[in-house]
Amino acid sequence: MNKIEHIGIAVNSVKLAGDIYGKLLNTTVYKTEEVASEGVKTAFLQAGPNKIELLEATNDNSPVARFIEKRGEGIHHIAFDVTDIQAEMARLKAEGFILLNDEPKQGADNKLVCFVHPKCTNGVLIELCQEIS
Amino acid sequence: MNKIEHIGIAVNSVKLAGDIYGKLLNTTVYKTEEVASEGVKTAFLQAGPNKIELLEATNDNSPVARFIEKRGEGIHHIAFDVTDIQAEMARLKAEGFILLNDEPKQGADNKLVCFVHPKCTNGVLIELCQEIS
Repeated sequence: MNKIEHIGIAVNSVKLAGDIYGKLLNTTVYKTEEVASEGVKTAFLQAGPNKIELLEATNDNSPVARFIEKRGEGIHHIAFDVTDIQAEMARLKAEGFILLNDEPKQGADNKLVCFVHPKCTNGVLIELCQEIS
Repeated sequence: MNKIEHIGIAVNSVKLAGDIYGKLLNTTVYKTEEVASEGVKTAFLQAGPNKIELLEATNDNSPVARFIEKRGEGIHHIAFDVTDIQAEMARLKAEGFILLNDEPKQGADNKLVCFVHPKCTNGVLIELCQEIS
């Protein structure tokens, strides 16, 4: 894994949280994007080589809506940048990790993504992501 | 803020979690350290420019013990690397963020650290850290 690509944070409003994280990081939201398949609006902020991805649910069945209902706003997942997502998925499967999707799927920010079940990783939802070239 | 310095993950055992995160990141724990003042044992793994800090409570009053009792294992905090922690603390205070310590304190991994109250940052415990030169 090359680096932490981003930290996903579940929030009630990407607009309000974007202002807060802009102040925190002394920057501004540089991109917003809706991912209809995941039921989320996203907003991105940069912190050096890493990003913060703010996530707001766009419907009540969104995983982000369920997360906030259960635990309140907070850190939703860690995403690691990988060079070859298929190879990493095969390596992790062979190590016994449970992957939440069999094939990489299209995520936000022009990425192929795959999630690892948090029960394999001490309660942490892990995302692998590979930039689509 | 220069980058995400590390993600802190609260776990029941740094030994067991170190093995899991070693497999996940295709690396090994490169350092373990006890921070008596915080009641934690820590183990560090590298992911490019970033680190994973595993945190195990060493007593029942440790903030990590209370976190796990309430929410189970999972992501405990995000730490951002800063060049001048005093300046960043003053900047954040002026922006209205509530700091959990008035002065930087000694943290793990040869760092001066300061925490920001999660109620200011959408439920996320934020750490600032500056390498002690």
